[in-house]
Amino acid sequence: MSEPQPNGPVLVVGTGLIGTSIGLALRSRGVQVHLADTDGDRLAAAVARGAGTDARPDDVSLVVVAVPPAALGESITAALAAWPTAVVCDVGSIKALPLEQVTAGGADTSRYVGSHPMAGSERSGPQAADAALFSGRAWAVTPHPDSASDAIDAVRALADSCDASVVEMSPAEHDAAVARVSHLPYVVSVLAAAQLLPAPASHLALSGQGLRDVTRVAGSDPELWQQILVGNAAQLRLLLADLRDDIDGLIAALPGERSGAESFELLDRGRRGTRLIPGKHGAPWTERSVISVQVLDRPGELARLLADAGQSGVNVEDLRIDHDPARCVGIVEVVVHVDAAESFARWLESSGWSVHK
Amino acid sequence: MSEPQPNGPVLVVGTGLIGTSIGLALRSRGVQVHLADTDGDRLAAAVARGAGTDARPDDVSLVVVAVPPAALGESITAALAAWPTAVVCDVGSIKALPLEQVTAGGADTSRYVGSHPMAGSERSGPQAADAALFSGRAWAVTPHPDSASDAIDAVRALADSCDASVVEMSPAEHDAAVARVSHLPYVVSVLAAAQLLPAPASHLALSGQGLRDVTRVAGSDPELWQQILVGNAAQLRLLLADLRDDIDGLIAALPGERSGAESFELLDRGRRGTRLIPGKHGAPWTERSVISVQVLDRPGELARLLADAGQSGVNVEDLRIDHDPARCVGIVEVVVHVDAAESFARWLESSGWSVHK
Repeated sequence: MSEPQPNGPVLVVGTGLIGTSIGLALRSRGVQVHLADTDGDRLAAAVARGAGTDARPDDVSLVVVAVPPAALGESITAALAAWPTAVVCDVGSIKALPLEQVTAGGADTSRYVGSHPMAGSERSGPQAADAALFSGRAWAVTPHPDSASDAIDAVRALADSCDASVVEMSPAEHDAAVARVSHLPYVVSVLAAAQLLPAPASHLALSGQGLRDVTRVAGSDPELWQQILVGNAAQLRLLLADLRDDIDGLIAALPGERSGAESFELLDRGRRGTRLIPGKHGAPWTERSVISVQVLDRPGELARLLADAGQSGVNVEDLRIDHDPARCVGIVEVVVHVDAAESFARWLESSGWSVHK
Repeated sequence: MSEPQPNGPVLVVGTGLIGTSIGLALRSRGVQVHLADTDGDRLAAAVARGAGTDARPDDVSLVVVAVPPAALGESITAALAAWPTAVVCDVGSIKALPLEQVTAGGADTSRYVGSHPMAGSERSGPQAADAALFSGRAWAVTPHPDSASDAIDAVRALADSCDASVVEMSPAEHDAAVARVSHLPYVVSVLAAAQLLPAPASHLALSGQGLRDVTRVAGSDPELWQQILVGNAAQLRLLLADLRDDIDGLIAALPGERSGAESFELLDRGRRGTRLIPGKHGAPWTERSVISVQVLDRPGELARLLADAGQSGVNVEDLRIDHDPARCVGIVEVVVHVDAAESFARWLESSGWSVHK
């Protein structure tokens, strides 16, 4: 089965992690790729990785704008002007503002379709790029009312060529969606992590997996995130106002003794919210059980555990590692479907593991 | 080497997850354990698990109060009165308020020492209990100025018997610490998760690992958490006020265009905060690299990956699974020390895995 792919030379503008990875994915399918970047060193690194050539093309069928959020509008406008017959798309984290900027510039927006591959932002640069970066990830394609249907098809084909799953929605819908499922979660992660700065080391010794989970995304590039938050300010403002109301409600509900129903209501809303996050393969949320297993912290132990787990025939849905702060002991939390938990735990115990549910 | 353990019969009051697990841990070391609970069914379940006997003891050397946070003060006071020569400790998530309540009741507090094992709260009930629940976890022991030294020793011995790592601090210090490293992270997780309730399914389709990480702890029992937050209201209020200030700062810094330095400052504080969380075995934070590997979503694949990883000789520091929303493809993120990343990725590739960094 041959999948659709761009049917002519592609120009990738911006050779960071995302642009270079797209180049690598297209090259692996034999598509001709030209690369451009204002930073000559970065461009050279992307060329050296095999993501494409830095020779200026005579003509291109598709321009992929892969620049930081703050530069999107300008770069898309320039690409539409420079390549008057090409389809132009971008792969930025925000979609409404760049479209506004491009439209305001008077460009022919029928050839422009926004998109956004949902790939990680913790890594950066052409050195970190890989052809498989988007494999199995969602890729939002966000046509606007003036987008031509062949332009939309070309961008869908790009996502397909990168082995991603297309999710089509409007630019405004996209921005509302990522404000909720990505930008606000990043902000609350930052809020919690920032509160650690005044903590003495003895207090941090009580850190557990909950803190690590909550603060993980706060460790990613603040400069990139600043551009994302600023670019999605309108959507984010609405959520931040709600967030502040919820905090005010919680503060008001906190007495010196047992509280009323108000704070509980927020906590319950939170738990219900976690049930809405799609599970594996977009399936509805299902109840899962956590089996905790003790492993020695040395190479191969985790593999031995999972080999034993694999023999049980039970599918491991998730796996988390928590480490003892003071000794070489690791607790591995293996998440399985609730119906399989009992037999799975017994299987591991019979294989000699120290298990608790 | 024999470790210290309680040198006489122990009474555990409250046979939920924590109390029953303590009973099981002590029984596995041959300590005589008596169990008590106001709920006869729960008590019977704990006895059936082998955590101890429900016969009323003639005398006990140690009483472990393992009741919900809101009932701690009353239960500790009752235990001190009922067992006039025993050491009494509790294992609740808050420490200053129960001590206040016990002191206000006029009890002999020299025999009371608070404590708090840092074990998970996502599971509950005697059915979920296990002798190994505390193994390798931190266990805060929180003496107050009137605590007798032999009482402190008895509680340290209890933690040792449960194979936990003792971290000693005052009750006030403990409450300040957990407000920051546990209660506030839970609150922000709830805030983010609660915002998902109005989201249409198409928006949730863009959910990624960041959202799952941030909201995981919001899925745990809201009633228990309400008691914890209420019991630590004074410490939490301070942090929530700071949180609101940070949100106000972020809202103020969000214009329709590029922002000033204020919002950036918060994001940078967040990233620096993540660096303070102790790494493995309490070691300082070190730079780690994420290697993403594609695996088929079927039993045994993860084991095969880790077996191959184990042969590389590189220690897997963390492992996370993200699933394609639409297809049976899983991306496994393997976290290794930054210095080992390059050779580790090459090793996996040479073993036939599709890898990107």
